[in-house]
Amino acid sequence: MVQSTRQIVLAARPEGMAKDSDFRLVEATIPAPNEGEVLIRVIWLSVDPYMRGRISDLASYAEPIPIGGVIVGDTVGEVMESRDPSSKAGDIVESYLGWQSHGVAKARALRKLDPRQAPVSTALGVLGMPGLTAYHGLIEVGRPRPGETVFVSGAAGAVGSAVGQIARIAGCRAVGSAGGPAKARHLTADLGFDAAFDYRAETDLRAALARTCPDGIDVYFDNVGGPITDAVLHHINLRARVVICGQIAGYNQRGKEMGPRNLWQLIVKRARIEGMLVSDFADKGEAARGYLTQWLHDGRLKYREDVVEGLENAPAAFRRLFTGENLGKQLVRVGPDPG
Amino acid sequence: MVQSTRQIVLAARPEGMAKDSDFRLVEATIPAPNEGEVLIRVIWLSVDPYMRGRISDLASYAEPIPIGGVIVGDTVGEVMESRDPSSKAGDIVESYLGWQSHGVAKARALRKLDPRQAPVSTALGVLGMPGLTAYHGLIEVGRPRPGETVFVSGAAGAVGSAVGQIARIAGCRAVGSAGGPAKARHLTADLGFDAAFDYRAETDLRAALARTCPDGIDVYFDNVGGPITDAVLHHINLRARVVICGQIAGYNQRGKEMGPRNLWQLIVKRARIEGMLVSDFADKGEAARGYLTQWLHDGRLKYREDVVEGLENAPAAFRRLFTGENLGKQLVRVGPDPG
Repeated sequence: MVQSTRQIVLAARPEGMAKDSDFRLVEATIPAPNEGEVLIRVIWLSVDPYMRGRISDLASYAEPIPIGGVIVGDTVGEVMESRDPSSKAGDIVESYLGWQSHGVAKARALRKLDPRQAPVSTALGVLGMPGLTAYHGLIEVGRPRPGETVFVSGAAGAVGSAVGQIARIAGCRAVGSAGGPAKARHLTADLGFDAAFDYRAETDLRAALARTCPDGIDVYFDNVGGPITDAVLHHINLRARVVICGQIAGYNQRGKEMGPRNLWQLIVKRARIEGMLVSDFADKGEAARGYLTQWLHDGRLKYREDVVEGLENAPAAFRRLFTGENLGKQLVRVGPDPG
Repeated sequence: MVQSTRQIVLAARPEGMAKDSDFRLVEATIPAPNEGEVLIRVIWLSVDPYMRGRISDLASYAEPIPIGGVIVGDTVGEVMESRDPSSKAGDIVESYLGWQSHGVAKARALRKLDPRQAPVSTALGVLGMPGLTAYHGLIEVGRPRPGETVFVSGAAGAVGSAVGQIARIAGCRAVGSAGGPAKARHLTADLGFDAAFDYRAETDLRAALARTCPDGIDVYFDNVGGPITDAVLHHINLRARVVICGQIAGYNQRGKEMGPRNLWQLIVKRARIEGMLVSDFADKGEAARGYLTQWLHDGRLKYREDVVEGLENAPAAFRRLFTGENLGKQLVRVGPDPG
């Protein structure tokens, strides 16, 4: 049996913000699964800032997607047909099928989800890569101690919102910046951040940091880069740790982005800046997911999802990450829940 | 008894490079030592890049020198009169008397030197703060492993030349950049660096790094900052460690110095940038000095001194650090050896 799938492929390498014309929706066929493989119908697709790197051809930690290639992405779907004893039709699984409606995957590359534990979409957000990124980045790289101040940029995003809440769980004061008054309010009113500000409304970011972090910043979890990071480096405490998780402010920049040189501040404060990728912590992933699940059940870890309907709207959903329109985890609904 | 001393005091806060008129040579009197104090005649004065920060009033890790204050600095001198049982006239000691010919110091703040161990001027260089900075910065912060490539900027200076040689002792490949062909040659011909280049002669610093560090850079010891550091960040290996020891390229900058934003590279390489100050490693100082002394005696650690004669020429000696005229440790001879 040959299965048809709708796919979004890379039509052109974007200049700056990715346009609809940089993508193309195609109809393709995929062969029936071989021994050890399963056929999956995608329900949820995750769009994440890292994908901007994959559709560019600049050197990075992963190979770029070729022109004509399906855009990569984490997915949650339903097993339609299994040729492996570990899976059966009807299983809900996480797999990395990318921007398409159906796909064939190795059974051993799947992670089976239990819908009774949590809504399965959380496998792409708070209990998935973004949640694990927050946990490992904050705990393993940032190493917060109770009583310290943790500041997070992009705090209303999938990663940032988890960072602030985990910081609170770790006994820290959590402060965040986000774009727009609704997001800033969400951080304090809904997620329990101790303070937050709308960076777009601040004329002096250093003053905003002084106001919201009166004891300075011990751990800075950076999702954004650019001017907010420049300002934070003037407000860190002795032996501060800066976790570079993302630099989304620069992902759509053409050419070289310039900023003030401020590594001198690292001597003044004997501070550390370190870049991290969640995949480096794979061996600790299950333990971290256990904590996150427990906190979710305890009500100590909250999350928001922002859903765009339809695979054909994945490019628009992806752009929301850069315009900042999304509040919480940006998802694309590709197909209906199992019925 | 009242002793007269010649002092160089701060006349004005320099704009950019410090001019002679920013300093003033004055004659002053100092009282006879009290109980527990000694009177010292200065023989050697150390001039170091960090002093640029002290004569500025920008926030840093130490208080600025007030206008009219004696410029600070590490000194080696001879005890003329002692009012403490731990010292006696004729002792050669390291103390922190600053830019002056004579001074009174607490006996317990002195470090007695043994001229049979090494020339006493080395207490200001390879066996002093610069040598310890190199040792602690490289070993404790950079954490080099045998076989790795260590790259050092400002490699012909007091700190940099020790860093490269300690890297070799630690089983690493040592590569350095310095200003001018004579310095670059000195690194490989005299100090045993595996490779070196004159950054002023290179039109493409990234190409120079690719040529001299074909296996990439695992530890970058940065004394300089600016364009060389920008280039290095594109040439670091996975899990590289960048030690920010100095940023001399920017010390005379007026206003904000701009450069390309490149923290993204830290994610790509999961690398770490960390600032260090030697004073944080005081508890490990004696152990480190022991190693350095042993390597000096073994001939594995070499050093150069660059001597300017006369306290009145200390401002000129200080400027040599920024013009790059000095080769090795810049000293000022303030008085004759004990005779």
